[in-house]
Amino acid sequence: MPEAQKEQRIPVVQKILSANDQAALENREHLQARDITTINIMASPGAGKTTLIMATIARLEGDRRVGVVEGDVASQVDAERIASTGAPVVQINTGGACHLDAPMVHSALSALPLDEIDLLFIENVGNLICPVSFDLGQTHSIALISVPEGHDKPYKYPAIFEAVDLVVVTKSDLMPYLDFDLDAFRELVHGLNPEAQVLVVSAKTGDGLDAWIDWLKEYRQ
Amino acid sequence: MPEAQKEQRIPVVQKILSANDQAALENREHLQARDITTINIMASPGAGKTTLIMATIARLEGDRRVGVVEGDVASQVDAERIASTGAPVVQINTGGACHLDAPMVHSALSALPLDEIDLLFIENVGNLICPVSFDLGQTHSIALISVPEGHDKPYKYPAIFEAVDLVVVTKSDLMPYLDFDLDAFRELVHGLNPEAQVLVVSAKTGDGLDAWIDWLKEYRQ
Repeated sequence: MPEAQKEQRIPVVQKILSANDQAALENREHLQARDITTINIMASPGAGKTTLIMATIARLEGDRRVGVVEGDVASQVDAERIASTGAPVVQINTGGACHLDAPMVHSALSALPLDEIDLLFIENVGNLICPVSFDLGQTHSIALISVPEGHDKPYKYPAIFEAVDLVVVTKSDLMPYLDFDLDAFRELVHGLNPEAQVLVVSAKTGDGLDAWIDWLKEYRQ
Repeated sequence: MPEAQKEQRIPVVQKILSANDQAALENREHLQARDITTINIMASPGAGKTTLIMATIARLEGDRRVGVVEGDVASQVDAERIASTGAPVVQINTGGACHLDAPMVHSALSALPLDEIDLLFIENVGNLICPVSFDLGQTHSIALISVPEGHDKPYKYPAIFEAVDLVVVTKSDLMPYLDFDLDAFRELVHGLNPEAQVLVVSAKTGDGLDAWIDWLKEYRQ
């Protein structure tokens, strides 16, 4: 056998990116190149995502320029609320899909004035399950859980708590009227994700918003 | 050409049922044959599905025998709560799927004492989007929306409001602390589904439970 034929062909294994991961990679490069911190917000319907974003825009006025991508199955009621603050916003309607994906966000980015944005919130579709599996190109993913939903959610939806950098308990002003055990909740979250921070806020009263703003500034990429 | 060959073959078009619809058909026949009324309950995480079922079991004691199928991505915390009432219950863990399907329910039925059940609740996975597309073989589908979620949900999740026979607004005891516009909510629901009834309940205070129990008895198949 000639010497040349004895050479081994060394297999090269490459991770073939899915279409979503490829688009997420491009989004991430695009956003990082412009020094934009991007937060993917995931939560149940009615957990207070839009309200927290609006309170954050008000707090950051003159300090950070905020842009928003709104994801919903239908309607643009949330985008209209954000637009009332003056912040640039794009509404994505998924038309039935239970999550945003990176190509949808890619389209939205091209409709935003990225040179005028320091902090971009992507408000995902209201859902604790589907959005978790789709990288959008964000800097950080966070989960919101509202006090009325109850402290047992980590039992039932573990994947979202494993996936995020921060859990924000919203509507803390309702604590007096509900049996939300914050210690039990923290313990469940940290059982799934020891690194996750847990903050407690009320966009209505302003309680806890200072710590939330500090987190946003500290965790700038 | 011989006479026989001139006969036309008449095409017969049959609806080919999907695997889910076929299993749903079998579930429905199975449940109807036993005179069991089956309610598919859909709602967001933490809307109070399990709590309403528990309050209903207590109200119907000695009148209707209730059984429950619990659907969750993970855990059996809800099934344990139901079991504490003494009602027969089966937990389905979808392992990541955002909805129940008819084959899952078919498996659950075989684990329930159907001869001892008059009214079967199927508590779907907490989600306003995915469960809507899957017939389970139920008599009726209903949606729960809790007051803290806000009255704008029909804008964002129209399909579920179009699909159900009844919408139950839960946690009405929190009305004084939140801006839930019940008239606006009814109008939005009826814009999507003029036939849907809207009831308002608090499992905590018992308000509205009489009307809910009446609906269940009246809407027995």
